[in-house]
Amino acid sequence: MSYQAPVRDQMFVLKDVLEIDKYANLPGFADASLDVVEQILTEGAKFCEEVLAPLNHVGDKEGCRWFPDNTVKTPTGFKAAWDAMVAAGWPALGSEPEYGGQGLPRVVSIAYSEMSSSANMAFSMYPGLTHGNYSAILVGGSDEQKALYLPKLATAEWGGTMNLTEPHCGTDLGLLRTKAVPQADGSYRITGQKIWISGGEHDLAENIVHLVLARIEGAPAGVKGISLFIVPKFIPNADGTLGPRNEGVKCAGLEEKMGIHGNATCVMSYEDAQGWLIGEENAGLKLMFVMMNEARLGVGLQGLAQGEAAYQAAAAFAKDRLQGRSLTGPKNPDGPADPIIVHPDVRRMLMDSRAILEGGRAFLLWTGLHGDLMHLSPDEAQRQKSSDYMGLMTPVLKGYLTDKGFKIASDAMQVHGGSGYTEHFPASQYLRDVRIALIYEGTNGIQALDLVGRKLAANGGRAVMSFFAEVDQFVGEHEADAELKPFVEGLTEAKAKLQEATMWLMQNGLANPDNAGAASTDYMHLFGITGLTYMWALIAKTAQAKIAAGDADPLYRNKLTVGRYFLERILPEAGSHLAKLKTGSATMMALEADAF
Amino acid sequence: MSYQAPVRDQMFVLKDVLEIDKYANLPGFADASLDVVEQILTEGAKFCEEVLAPLNHVGDKEGCRWFPDNTVKTPTGFKAAWDAMVAAGWPALGSEPEYGGQGLPRVVSIAYSEMSSSANMAFSMYPGLTHGNYSAILVGGSDEQKALYLPKLATAEWGGTMNLTEPHCGTDLGLLRTKAVPQADGSYRITGQKIWISGGEHDLAENIVHLVLARIEGAPAGVKGISLFIVPKFIPNADGTLGPRNEGVKCAGLEEKMGIHGNATCVMSYEDAQGWLIGEENAGLKLMFVMMNEARLGVGLQGLAQGEAAYQAAAAFAKDRLQGRSLTGPKNPDGPADPIIVHPDVRRMLMDSRAILEGGRAFLLWTGLHGDLMHLSPDEAQRQKSSDYMGLMTPVLKGYLTDKGFKIASDAMQVHGGSGYTEHFPASQYLRDVRIALIYEGTNGIQALDLVGRKLAANGGRAVMSFFAEVDQFVGEHEADAELKPFVEGLTEAKAKLQEATMWLMQNGLANPDNAGAASTDYMHLFGITGLTYMWALIAKTAQAKIAAGDADPLYRNKLTVGRYFLERILPEAGSHLAKLKTGSATMMALEADAF
Repeated sequence: MSYQAPVRDQMFVLKDVLEIDKYANLPGFADASLDVVEQILTEGAKFCEEVLAPLNHVGDKEGCRWFPDNTVKTPTGFKAAWDAMVAAGWPALGSEPEYGGQGLPRVVSIAYSEMSSSANMAFSMYPGLTHGNYSAILVGGSDEQKALYLPKLATAEWGGTMNLTEPHCGTDLGLLRTKAVPQADGSYRITGQKIWISGGEHDLAENIVHLVLARIEGAPAGVKGISLFIVPKFIPNADGTLGPRNEGVKCAGLEEKMGIHGNATCVMSYEDAQGWLIGEENAGLKLMFVMMNEARLGVGLQGLAQGEAAYQAAAAFAKDRLQGRSLTGPKNPDGPADPIIVHPDVRRMLMDSRAILEGGRAFLLWTGLHGDLMHLSPDEAQRQKSSDYMGLMTPVLKGYLTDKGFKIASDAMQVHGGSGYTEHFPASQYLRDVRIALIYEGTNGIQALDLVGRKLAANGGRAVMSFFAEVDQFVGEHEADAELKPFVEGLTEAKAKLQEATMWLMQNGLANPDNAGAASTDYMHLFGITGLTYMWALIAKTAQAKIAAGDADPLYRNKLTVGRYFLERILPEAGSHLAKLKTGSATMMALEADAF
Repeated sequence: MSYQAPVRDQMFVLKDVLEIDKYANLPGFADASLDVVEQILTEGAKFCEEVLAPLNHVGDKEGCRWFPDNTVKTPTGFKAAWDAMVAAGWPALGSEPEYGGQGLPRVVSIAYSEMSSSANMAFSMYPGLTHGNYSAILVGGSDEQKALYLPKLATAEWGGTMNLTEPHCGTDLGLLRTKAVPQADGSYRITGQKIWISGGEHDLAENIVHLVLARIEGAPAGVKGISLFIVPKFIPNADGTLGPRNEGVKCAGLEEKMGIHGNATCVMSYEDAQGWLIGEENAGLKLMFVMMNEARLGVGLQGLAQGEAAYQAAAAFAKDRLQGRSLTGPKNPDGPADPIIVHPDVRRMLMDSRAILEGGRAFLLWTGLHGDLMHLSPDEAQRQKSSDYMGLMTPVLKGYLTDKGFKIASDAMQVHGGSGYTEHFPASQYLRDVRIALIYEGTNGIQALDLVGRKLAANGGRAVMSFFAEVDQFVGEHEADAELKPFVEGLTEAKAKLQEATMWLMQNGLANPDNAGAASTDYMHLFGITGLTYMWALIAKTAQAKIAAGDADPLYRNKLTVGRYFLERILPEAGSHLAKLKTGSATMMALEADAF
C-alpha cells in the first residue's frame, strides 16, 4: 500500500478538537469554512498521493546530479511535479493574497505541508524553504523588494534558499566570514563560501532567490555584525522579468548524504556576487530567524510526516506478512501462518507510533493555530499568549517530533524485519531521510538549549506559566468527569513533573549554567510528553463527547484506545527524564576532555 | 582520528574484573596467561587498525558486485586482507587445536572479535559466520565430516554460511520449502531458494561451505521435519583438496541494502545441488541453533563494536570542532571558539555512550567467560550455572546491545552535526551498518520473546534465580562499603525492579501469553540495564580496590565517574520499563487489525 494522506484525522483535529470554525470572524479563517478546508485537503491529498509519492523512491535512487557548468539536475519527474504544483497553487496556500497567495490560515497550510512532506520529503523541501524565504522578505524587505520578489516566491515560480553555514561555522554563526562590499549603486558585492544549502541550485524554477548572511566590511565581530542579503541567481528587472545571470553566484558541488537524495544540498560559491541588503545593516540574524523559526516548525513537521509515512508502510506490511501464530491461538487458521500484526511486540511498535503521531499531529496543529492567532486575534491577551506559545513550543516540536519520527521510522524498519533493511521496501529511505531532521535548522541539542536558555526565561517565564495555567484549567474543569479520569490523572502527573523540572532549572540553572545544559534534552522530552498528554486529553474529551452524543464512528473509540495506550506506554518516560535531569551536570562534566 | 582498539579497557576487564588468570587450571586458559593475552590482543589491534579499518569506507562505497556468471566480487582490498588474516591465524583463535585452531578461551577470542567488528563490520561477518559454521559441524558432524571440513573452516581457508531464510519464511522456519531428495550414494539433492545469505558467494576463499536447512521428502510438516545439510560450493576430495564444482548451488543475485555493503547478501539458488545430511534427520533446527546462538552473541558484539567505533569518531570530532563558547566561560580563549566537547549536551551523548559501551563490554566478556566455563569447569554446578547464564544472557546481549549500539551510532552522528549526515564522515556508515544488527539472527523482538517465553521458564526459572542470588551475594558482601554505596544501592534497585517484573510475568504471562509478548521488549531492556548495573558494580569494586592500593592510573577514577554516570543517567530507565510492562496487553491489543 502506498502513502494515504490522513485527511480524516486532520479534519478531526481541525474541526472537532480545535474547532477552527470558531474563528470565522478572523481574516483568512473567514474564507476557510470547514467544507472548504476539507475540500482543499482532499484535493491536496490527491496531489501528494498521486504525483509526489510515486517520485519518492525515484528521487532516492537517482539523487541530484551536478555538472561542471555549475548546473544541477533533479531526479526524473521532479520538474514536471514542480510545474504541476505551481499550476495548482499548492505553495501559495498560506501566502498573502496581495502577493498572489490564497491567504488561508497557517493551521490549514500546515496540514497540507504534512502530507506533502510524507509523500516526498526531499521534493517538499524546495517549496518549503521557498516559503521560508518568502516570509523573511515579507517581514524585512522594503516595499520595492516585496513587490519584486514576493509574488514569484509565493507561487514558487521562483525558488528560495537560506545561506547560513560555512565550513568552519555552523551553529556558531558569529564566526562567519562571508563578506559584503558596498557598491556605489546601493547594492553589495558578496564573497564567500556557503555549505549545506538545500535547493541552492536546481532545474525546477526559472530563478532562485538566495538569502545570504554576510558581514559588511568594517562591521563588528560576532553575531552583531551580520547582515542579510538577497542574492538572486538571475537579477530581476523592475517588471519582474528575468534580467542577467548574477555571475558571481554558483553551485560548486553537491554533498553526498545519507538521505534526502532528491534534494540538492549545495556548496555555494559567492565571488563578487551582486546582492541587496534586506532590513537593517548588522541586523541580519534576527531577520534570518524569521525564516529559521518557520523552518524549525517545518522540520518538526518533517519528523511527524516521515514517521506517518513509515508507520503506514509498517502497518501495511504487518497485515500482509504471514509468519508464526498468535500466542493466543491461530487468527488465520486457513492460512499457513497468521499476519504478524497478531504479535504483541509488533503491535507495541505500531501503537507506540500511533500514540506519538496522532498526539503529535494535534500538537503541531494546535501550535499552528496559535501561529494564526498571534497575528489575527483581536484580543491582545490572546495575541500575546499565542506568540508566547509559538516561541515556547517551536523548539519542543522540532526536537521531540524529530527524535520520535526517527524512532518511528526505525520501528517501522523493525516491523519489516530483514525486508526493511533492503532497498526494495521503503523503510530504509524513510529512516535515512528523516535522520537529517534531528540535525538541520539547529540540532536537537540546540533546540533544547534554546528552550531552557531563552524560551523558558523570556518575560519572567510567562509562556510556561501560561501553559501550566491552561493545563490546570482543563484539569479543574474535567476532574469530576469519570470517563476522562485516566486522562486527567495522566495530565496532572505529567504537568507536575514538568513543573518540578522547571523549578529545578530555575534553582540550579542560574547558579551553574552547565546544569541547564545538562538538563536540556531531558527537559525538552519531558515537555514534549506533557504537550502530547495534554493533546490526548483534548482528543479524549472530544471523542468522548462524540460517543456520548451517539456517534458510532469507530474513530472515536479508537482515539480513546490509542490515548490510553499513550498514558500506559509513553507517559512513564516522563519520570525517567525528570530523574535524569535532576542529577545535574557534575558527573557529566567530571572527566577531562582528553579522557575521551 | 581512525579507530583505536580498546585493548587497555579489554585487559582491565579480563585481568582485573574477571581475573581470568584464576582459571589457569583449565584447558585453553593454561596457554592464555595474561601476558600472552595482552600480546595477542595488541597484535590483533594492529591488524584491525591497520588492515581492516582502512577498508571500511572502501567497502561501503564500492559494495559487492554480482556478475552474470554467478560470481561475486568483494570490494578492493578485501581479498588481500582476507589472505593476511588467514596467514596470521586470526580466525582460528578460539578453534580446537586438533583442527588447527589455537584453542584460546572464548573470552579472549570475543575480545579480538570486538575490534575486528569495530574496524570493519562488513568484512568481519565473513570469518564470523565461518566460525559459526565450524561450530555447528563440530557439534553435529560425523567424524568424517569433521575431519574433512573443520581444518579448512577453522583457519578460514574456506568460508562458511548459514542458509535459513526463504522469501516467504524468515522467523517462522516451519514454513520452509527447500527440499532434499535422498540419493543412492547417501547424499541428497537439494532444491530451493534461500535469501539474505551473508557471504553466500565471494572471491575471498577457495571454497564456501553452505549449511542449508531443508525438508527431506516425506518429512513431517513444520519445524519437526527440518534437516540440516552441508552443501559445499566445491565438493572436497577425501584428502581435503578441491573436487568438482557443485553445479546446483549458485548465487542468483545480491540484495541492495542500507548498509554493510562490503558483505555480499546473496540470493542462493539450489537446483539439485549435492548435499550431505549433518546430524539426525529432522533434527536440523536444533543443530542450526548451535550456529544461531553463537551468531546471536556475535550480533550483540556487533552492536557494541559499531557503537565503540562510532563513539570514538564522535569523541574525536567533539575535541576538534570549534563552535560556540562554554556556558561557564571560554575554555579555549585564544581560539575563535571552544571545542564542542565543552557543551553539556555533547558530553551527555558521549557519556551515555561510554556508560553503555564500557558496561556492555564487561557484560559481553563476563558472559563469554561463562561460555568457557560451561564446557571447561571441573565443577558440575559451575558448568550448569554457566550454561544457564549463556542461555539467559544471549538474547539480552543481542537485543540490548544492538538497540543501544544503534542509539550510540545515532548520537555519534548527532555530535557531528551536519557533517555526520554527509558521507565524508564515518558516522553515516556506522549508523547504516549497525542497523541490521537489530534485525538479523532473530529480530530483537524475537530475542525478547525467547527471553520471556523460553529462557526465563527453563528449569523452573533456575537461570534467573541463580543470577538474582549472585547479585544478592554481591550486595550482601558490599553493603557496608561506603565507597561502593551508590553502586550497591543502584544494583539493589535494579534487581528489585527486575525481580518485580519477573514476578509480574510469572503471574500474568501464563494466564494470557499476550501479556508476556506485550512485556517482552521492556523486560529485555530492564534485564540489560540490570546486567550493566551489576557490571558497573563489579568494575567500581575493582577500580576502588586499585585506588585504595595506591594505583594512580586515571583509568580507575574515570571508571568510577562513568559508573556513577550510568547510575544517574541510564538506571532511571529501569522504572519506566517496569511501569510500561506492568500495563499488560489489553490496550495494546484492543484495536481491530483493520484499524491500522
